[in-house]
Amino acid sequence: MANHVVIMAGGIGSRFWPLSTPEFPKQFIDILGCGRSLIQLTVDRFKGICPPENFWVVTNKDYVDIVKEQIPGIPSAHILAEPAARNTAPCIAWACWSIRQEDADANVVVTPSDAVVMNPEEFRRVISGALEFTAGHDKIVTIGIKPNRPETGYGYVKTVQKGPVPNCIIQVEAFKEKPDLDTAKRYLADGNYLWNAGIFVWNVRTITESIRLYKPDLAAQMDKMVPNGRFISTKSTVPNGTVLEIFPQCEKISIDYAVMEPASADKKVYTCPADFGWSDLGNWQSLHEKLQKDACNNASVGNISFYESSNCVVHAEGLKKVVLQGLDGYIVSEKNGQLLVCKRSEEQRIKEFSAK
Amino acid sequence: MANHVVIMAGGIGSRFWPLSTPEFPKQFIDILGCGRSLIQLTVDRFKGICPPENFWVVTNKDYVDIVKEQIPGIPSAHILAEPAARNTAPCIAWACWSIRQEDADANVVVTPSDAVVMNPEEFRRVISGALEFTAGHDKIVTIGIKPNRPETGYGYVKTVQKGPVPNCIIQVEAFKEKPDLDTAKRYLADGNYLWNAGIFVWNVRTITESIRLYKPDLAAQMDKMVPNGRFISTKSTVPNGTVLEIFPQCEKISIDYAVMEPASADKKVYTCPADFGWSDLGNWQSLHEKLQKDACNNASVGNISFYESSNCVVHAEGLKKVVLQGLDGYIVSEKNGQLLVCKRSEEQRIKEFSAK
Repeated sequence: MANHVVIMAGGIGSRFWPLSTPEFPKQFIDILGCGRSLIQLTVDRFKGICPPENFWVVTNKDYVDIVKEQIPGIPSAHILAEPAARNTAPCIAWACWSIRQEDADANVVVTPSDAVVMNPEEFRRVISGALEFTAGHDKIVTIGIKPNRPETGYGYVKTVQKGPVPNCIIQVEAFKEKPDLDTAKRYLADGNYLWNAGIFVWNVRTITESIRLYKPDLAAQMDKMVPNGRFISTKSTVPNGTVLEIFPQCEKISIDYAVMEPASADKKVYTCPADFGWSDLGNWQSLHEKLQKDACNNASVGNISFYESSNCVVHAEGLKKVVLQGLDGYIVSEKNGQLLVCKRSEEQRIKEFSAK
Repeated sequence: MANHVVIMAGGIGSRFWPLSTPEFPKQFIDILGCGRSLIQLTVDRFKGICPPENFWVVTNKDYVDIVKEQIPGIPSAHILAEPAARNTAPCIAWACWSIRQEDADANVVVTPSDAVVMNPEEFRRVISGALEFTAGHDKIVTIGIKPNRPETGYGYVKTVQKGPVPNCIIQVEAFKEKPDLDTAKRYLADGNYLWNAGIFVWNVRTITESIRLYKPDLAAQMDKMVPNGRFISTKSTVPNGTVLEIFPQCEKISIDYAVMEPASADKKVYTCPADFGWSDLGNWQSLHEKLQKDACNNASVGNISFYESSNCVVHAEGLKKVVLQGLDGYIVSEKNGQLLVCKRSEEQRIKEFSAK
């Protein structure tokens, strides 16, 4: 049974403006300053699990050229260019219908393109275990991250077992949306809740049939769209008329709502508890956590000199030299001639700041 | 009697890093965001007083090409490229010896290249009056700016008359170095002190003979250097061997020390009290004063958006978009990929910040 990896790379990463822009979003940026973009790091961490020819990327049509450039080994027929963003359910459906067309026995991992994993070794161990499980069982597996804090920015999965989760694949009782702080604290205390990392493992039969069961309209759309091919010609990655017509008609819905919630109610979802230094890198706070800090708790990417500054997070690789004096708790970010200096406490307003 | 203007443009403007760098210093920058560099504004304000062919620029050899580009009308033989910075006395001596060689009856204004004048109309009226005076008198005239605050960053000239200075040319009793605050307050209260703007007016005979009297060594060096020409060939602006040999041997001394102080003791110096919105634009503080401010006292050049920010001075014309949030009393400056954010109270440390 061959392994396939589907990378979802359609986001626009507006919370990292101006580092991330709709023209060149977060997943394609070397946000950690390590020489590899987030999507490249995502590909890297599947080394040994999935051969290059079995990678799939679902992205916006505007990013196809960036994907080709950043992932040179990927077959161009595996770059699925969404004519419009329809959330994760249509994205995953299109990828899995397409995989099934190529390989009806495929075993599949679906992953975001913009998360980070600090321990790729452990990541591979966990994913391999999950793939082994889905090779033998027609179940849906979600990777559950062991929480180390009452995080309100993530969704959770609740496992069936009371008390601390064991180190093995275990049934999911329910998916939980982002909680408030009190609820998150209770989740942490109860012990049987895990962060939903948005990483799913299944064989292609299971997911396509689950979508048919819980979202028959979406399945019908895929049945109509996928057999007609994807591109205007065999050499092109431009979506053909059928894709342009049908895909934008798909309901905008997440895979969690469309499949995970009803399937977990039907006791068909399992989770694989994991601890491999995962972060969704969804904001400057999490980037500050992941980067190395100096003695004054400043984290930076670029040639940055700090004077009387502390608790800053700075990303300005495009500048030759940056001098910061007298800043405590600020974000400083520059890319392509756009500069942001703002308090870390105001980072939720970055979308507002980036607007014209 | 023809008027000539000598523009001293050898400074490196280190207090405006990274806006100003040794490679492209302040006087060549559009620091006010008005579309003209400081040296271009300096040329502009002599329109009607001096024809283009009578301008002279003394600058460092590294800036000759910038001068040619920014002042297209200037004869290239009038760009004097100093092989080494020797302060203002050798600079002025070289220019005035050269002018005398071309025109023994020249009437001369010497001016810095990096000051600003908010009222050029009034500037022309004052300078014309001073030139009229030096056309008829073998005197040294310095333009004295009527002080509006006890500034400690400027030198002063003391006029002979007690009490408020009249609106006419008046004899100078003494030159005073930058005072401490108490002294500056007394100067302001006494009323017969003016700021020394470093703008001098004289006929060429008077200044060359004054230098011969008070700095005979410098005069002897000029007597030796100037008749031998300036350049390696008639088409070139590269200094010839004589300049390379003699000029760097000149004593590093300001015109104030070398000539103004002894000449004022000899009652040969006059001042023309003036009020034309002059500023030496020597630091960010003075730039903040000269620029338009928004309702929160932010002054900026560039496409800058302020949120919860006040009392800032920002110069970032090279950036497409800058968003600043939560900054009170900061300098933000960008040029050619170098960025500075620092408290305005720390601006005297900018030299330190700019060091490698």
